[in-house]
Amino acid sequence: MEQEYRLILLGFGNVGRAFARLLLDKRMYLQEKYNISWRVVGIATGRHGTALSREGIDLESALQIVGDDRDLSSLSKVPPPENALDFIHKSDADVLFENTPVHYEDGQPATDHLRAALSRDMHAITANKGPVVHAYRDLTGLANTKNRAFLFESAVMDGAPVFSLWREVLPGARLISFRGVLNSTTNLILSLMEDGKSFEQALTHAQEIGIAETDPSGDLDGWDAAIKVSALVTVLMGHPVRPTQVEREGIRGLSKEIVARSWQEGKRWKLLCEARRDGDRITASVHPEEIGIHDPLFNVMGTSSAVTFQSDVLGALTIKEEDPGPHTTAYGLLADFLNAVRR
Amino acid sequence: MEQEYRLILLGFGNVGRAFARLLLDKRMYLQEKYNISWRVVGIATGRHGTALSREGIDLESALQIVGDDRDLSSLSKVPPPENALDFIHKSDADVLFENTPVHYEDGQPATDHLRAALSRDMHAITANKGPVVHAYRDLTGLANTKNRAFLFESAVMDGAPVFSLWREVLPGARLISFRGVLNSTTNLILSLMEDGKSFEQALTHAQEIGIAETDPSGDLDGWDAAIKVSALVTVLMGHPVRPTQVEREGIRGLSKEIVARSWQEGKRWKLLCEARRDGDRITASVHPEEIGIHDPLFNVMGTSSAVTFQSDVLGALTIKEEDPGPHTTAYGLLADFLNAVRR
Repeated sequence: MEQEYRLILLGFGNVGRAFARLLLDKRMYLQEKYNISWRVVGIATGRHGTALSREGIDLESALQIVGDDRDLSSLSKVPPPENALDFIHKSDADVLFENTPVHYEDGQPATDHLRAALSRDMHAITANKGPVVHAYRDLTGLANTKNRAFLFESAVMDGAPVFSLWREVLPGARLISFRGVLNSTTNLILSLMEDGKSFEQALTHAQEIGIAETDPSGDLDGWDAAIKVSALVTVLMGHPVRPTQVEREGIRGLSKEIVARSWQEGKRWKLLCEARRDGDRITASVHPEEIGIHDPLFNVMGTSSAVTFQSDVLGALTIKEEDPGPHTTAYGLLADFLNAVRR
Repeated sequence: MEQEYRLILLGFGNVGRAFARLLLDKRMYLQEKYNISWRVVGIATGRHGTALSREGIDLESALQIVGDDRDLSSLSKVPPPENALDFIHKSDADVLFENTPVHYEDGQPATDHLRAALSRDMHAITANKGPVVHAYRDLTGLANTKNRAFLFESAVMDGAPVFSLWREVLPGARLISFRGVLNSTTNLILSLMEDGKSFEQALTHAQEIGIAETDPSGDLDGWDAAIKVSALVTVLMGHPVRPTQVEREGIRGLSKEIVARSWQEGKRWKLLCEARRDGDRITASVHPEEIGIHDPLFNVMGTSSAVTFQSDVLGALTIKEEDPGPHTTAYGLLADFLNAVRR
């Protein structure tokens, strides 16, 4: 029997819109393959207003309106909610997709949104790392109490399965250590420096194509990578580690000359993300390292990312993702949705 | 509440014994983490007799006896069964682990064993590719009818998640093509040839360390790789393809000189396994190819294996496994067991 789910989208930027397009593309496929249909009953944006409608919002129209830089409230059937929490409460939805900008110091306001949704018996899904590193135990505990899911596959390596890999398909395995290249901006910069660009030229290019932010320090100083390490350790090793507890060195110390010299010797610099379990202790770090051709991370180039897991039952297991973008992040949200509702 | 499962092991060679050791190692962990306990109620071997006991067989003793080349029937509490099917019927087990030698032409006798187990309401788990390429639809249909699982994670890339990846964590995604290095023997031989060994020297070495068989033609002529391609296409693309329908060329045409010349140009030869969906048509092949340093399969060395998937929702997603062995195949069996019973 077909099951319909009422969805709300909180945040409608690049990722939220890519997710809306993916929902539309996959509508028939989800019905045919999983007997799952959906209706978007609310969209809340930062700059284009909010729409709520129990009958459902036409996603094509919503995409068009926001693409034209107009206001979504024309699609709303009820008075505008006061704020994001009011939006969640009034929506009466089954699933929240949380994609608002997040502050990494405290994981807010995303964490409050996710908590509100779970409290109202919704599944809570996000691509944000913030709530994972700051509130994983709380939100997971609340989700378990409510028999709902708190999922966040896209928080690390976009839609490539990392969290779900350990949750669903490696049962009985114990993660001992991991080692990865998880920050796209720095990896792209290092790749461009190998091609002869200076650090500044590479950074400017990364900013021009929209990979690096105007203030790139979150990437260059290893903060984004440290947050990802923190998320992986917290969830996969069952050991809460704050980003500030991750030993951290960025790539500002690497010059074009250093990178070129290594490359002449057949070696490459990568910003490595590492963690290891030693008894009850976890050591975690982000640091640049020169690696050789036999390293499984050697040909992780440009915006690609990869992580190698060592467990007690398998040899090194590497997952690598190429060509990421909003559409792959959007797929992670869709996978979380399907995994949440088909359990 | 703790749930106990009665297991039978049909086949007790390297993989069966590694699985027995893993069950022992993980006994406490499975109880604590999943509330799952187990009792092995039957072991049938090719050369060391058969034991059946509803009270359970002590696995330590069984490993010791077979290690000493003695007969297991001393552990049996009932008269020996007439044959493997009789063993399955009399066992009254919950899960069959099928690890007997298989004939790849027809997938027998493994397929009959698995069918008998499913018919008796057991989960049926195997590391054999034969039943997958010859009877996937039949056995899966029977499993669905019986509300049991037919699982075979270890059939390709040992315990690394390939089938379960698509079954469990990539919902809603459609596989368009894959490309991999899936045969350990040929990849080890090519790696050794890069180090300067002749084809014959490399093959002899691979035979000495137990990777290549006495008659290595199944590996060298690409049959093992073709069976794996056939299994992946059949299961992941929903399109039954027989191994004989896979275009196939082995590595016998590659000399030490050819490999050395490529290596001097920074290139490598790999026996590639490929398949691609074009509308309703599937093209599948196994063939040697010279690949460059930017290829995600470039540093798959020795007995390692890897596969890159292209789907409609993600960029290239690569899974790589290093250091395989009977213990990693055994882990695949354990993962299948846990995934079967915790659904």
